[in-house]
Amino acid sequence: MARIVMKFGGTSVGDCERIKNVARRVKAEVDRGNEVAVVVSAMSGVTNQLVDYCKRIAPLHDAREYDAVVATGEQVTSGLLAMALQALDVPARSWSGWQIPIRTDGAHGKARIEAIETAELERRMASGQVAVVAGFQGIGPDSRVTTLGRGGSDTSAVALAAAVKADRCDIYTDVDGVYTTDPRIVAKARKLDKITYEEMLELASLGAKVLQTRSVEMAMKYRVRVQVLSSFVDAPGTLVCDEDEIVEKELVSGIAYSRDEAKITLVRVADRPGVAAAIFGPLTDANINVDMIVQNVSEDGKHTDMTFTVAKSDLDRAVKVLNEKTEDLNYQRLVPDSNVVKVSVIGMGMRSHAGVAQKMFKTLAVKSINIQVTSTSEIKLSVILAEEYTELALRALHTAYGLDTH
Amino acid sequence: MARIVMKFGGTSVGDCERIKNVARRVKAEVDRGNEVAVVVSAMSGVTNQLVDYCKRIAPLHDAREYDAVVATGEQVTSGLLAMALQALDVPARSWSGWQIPIRTDGAHGKARIEAIETAELERRMASGQVAVVAGFQGIGPDSRVTTLGRGGSDTSAVALAAAVKADRCDIYTDVDGVYTTDPRIVAKARKLDKITYEEMLELASLGAKVLQTRSVEMAMKYRVRVQVLSSFVDAPGTLVCDEDEIVEKELVSGIAYSRDEAKITLVRVADRPGVAAAIFGPLTDANINVDMIVQNVSEDGKHTDMTFTVAKSDLDRAVKVLNEKTEDLNYQRLVPDSNVVKVSVIGMGMRSHAGVAQKMFKTLAVKSINIQVTSTSEIKLSVILAEEYTELALRALHTAYGLDTH
Repeated sequence: MARIVMKFGGTSVGDCERIKNVARRVKAEVDRGNEVAVVVSAMSGVTNQLVDYCKRIAPLHDAREYDAVVATGEQVTSGLLAMALQALDVPARSWSGWQIPIRTDGAHGKARIEAIETAELERRMASGQVAVVAGFQGIGPDSRVTTLGRGGSDTSAVALAAAVKADRCDIYTDVDGVYTTDPRIVAKARKLDKITYEEMLELASLGAKVLQTRSVEMAMKYRVRVQVLSSFVDAPGTLVCDEDEIVEKELVSGIAYSRDEAKITLVRVADRPGVAAAIFGPLTDANINVDMIVQNVSEDGKHTDMTFTVAKSDLDRAVKVLNEKTEDLNYQRLVPDSNVVKVSVIGMGMRSHAGVAQKMFKTLAVKSINIQVTSTSEIKLSVILAEEYTELALRALHTAYGLDTH
Repeated sequence: MARIVMKFGGTSVGDCERIKNVARRVKAEVDRGNEVAVVVSAMSGVTNQLVDYCKRIAPLHDAREYDAVVATGEQVTSGLLAMALQALDVPARSWSGWQIPIRTDGAHGKARIEAIETAELERRMASGQVAVVAGFQGIGPDSRVTTLGRGGSDTSAVALAAAVKADRCDIYTDVDGVYTTDPRIVAKARKLDKITYEEMLELASLGAKVLQTRSVEMAMKYRVRVQVLSSFVDAPGTLVCDEDEIVEKELVSGIAYSRDEAKITLVRVADRPGVAAAIFGPLTDANINVDMIVQNVSEDGKHTDMTFTVAKSDLDRAVKVLNEKTEDLNYQRLVPDSNVVKVSVIGMGMRSHAGVAQKMFKTLAVKSINIQVTSTSEIKLSVILAEEYTELALRALHTAYGLDTH
């Protein structure tokens, strides 16, 4: 007997037939003798509809009221799934965030879970009742409904799994696992049986949209074994787990890409101490995150070129902020470029093996792909390329690192 | 300064523009210096959609889960209206049933309000904050969400008005008041300025769908002054109030009709003691309500005809139940008739004035309309007619009782 938390996303519960299908999957887990809690998202489209209502009522609105409105989507699904389980003779009841309660901080719209009181839930789970929990929500210190931010149901599931000390947290989604890279682009992409928390965290933050970043951080912190699998296919998925659980370690586990970044180059900035602060201070003040930064070696000792990346959605604002500072910053020219892609190679093995970067540079050079910006961390290596090379670069690197299916 | 509870139904909050319109009406009340609480229904169509989901998941479902699902509609509206008020610089916050809390009994799906804890609400109202309350819902003894049954938001509003000792409870709807009869049928129908609780109760239970019957009962019990008015027209509506508040009393206040009833005649039933119990016992067991009953005088001392009415939606079941009892009841023939209408004349004045019934019989006789069944109470007189005479009868009676506009 194991204790399992199952989580189903919006497309998995997209209509009544799919909710019944989810109920059958939950029943199968119960029939295996397991204690089960289920976390559900809103039916697909519902949250967008509710968010749209809020925007139409008032573009700037009270986050507490936004939370009261949008949290209802998950409450509907949880009630419907509990009904569907009962119709299969599986004892079940729905739980809203405030009923359990799932206590969060007061940051409405992007709250963080602080504690989950699971005594009653665990007592009922032990007696055979499935707990169907509305994801994405909790209750704040002001006794009002909070939400965790988009995709927060993954975090709800992992937090609940940590709180009830679940043996596994199964995240059912519309893909059947975590792949070495995007299989829509690289036909030879391979589904991974296992991946470490650290690698998954890099993949999630680098554009692979399988799991919400925060849910991976939480899984890593509380060592919750998370399985990503399909709610439409009956097959094991990918287990996100501790490094120790993975016997055959690969040098590189996956290749991620993101088209959500844009590049800005400031040409001939005065090369003096404090110039970086002068550039990035105003961007920080404007709440614009800067990701990669490269400063060229100065040729004349007086000027340099500064290149960095921001989210594509922030590009226009960033250009505006910097244009307003032209005189202070004393640069000659600002060159924005939104036609770029960030490609990242990720692997625990990079810590101990040299040559990973060299292989990347060589592989891209052979294909005549110019690297515009590079950045590295302990287990990842990212480059910015012209967007038109995305597919070519991904396929070449996938083969070069030996990730292709045989 | 007065304390006002305003209630807006589904069509009044049917989309974002209408919710903004409601916010402007609430603001006007606040600008007059009043303390205001608002009770809202779900946006029109939303509750039907949620009920439909429940039916599709499982035709027979747990009423507790049904409540968890359908109560979300009003929660959405309350959040959106609070936002719309804030956008007009009116301090406001939304309240779900469980947050106030509105305590109900445990009869999920048709719960009754037992108590409302208004201390915090009143404190905030006194400080100028508008309380936007999700109608139709409360929290049961099991700490789960309950709903009050369809149309329950009227009851929420009246109960809240009673709890906060409001000077008035304004029910905004898609009609501009209570009419002497249905203006779609009788062009000369007149809007009433005032009507007593007792009359309104008869009107509500006899087919006028302006207010939910239970809300009128509650208003009468706690002497809450209820005004019915339009959310689309800026004009006073009809005040439902104590008899003492009405100076010019009419003999007859209104004429209601209902096409929701059907008639059953049992021909040549054995005329012996206990026969009524033998007929109506099985119907009661089958949860079928019998409304009007007429037993003819026996011609031969051995047999009689028994006529009664049931809800049209129960007719087929009633016939089935009675057919199964043919031998016990020993009747000759069962004649069901669903082509009937119940027309009712209502007025406090009937208590003290004779001649109301005589006027009805004479008016209908002049138009050659046959009365099939008659029943009376202290302040109403109902007859069953062939349905085809509905319009003719309503117009003739409306004129006869002097209700026409001049």
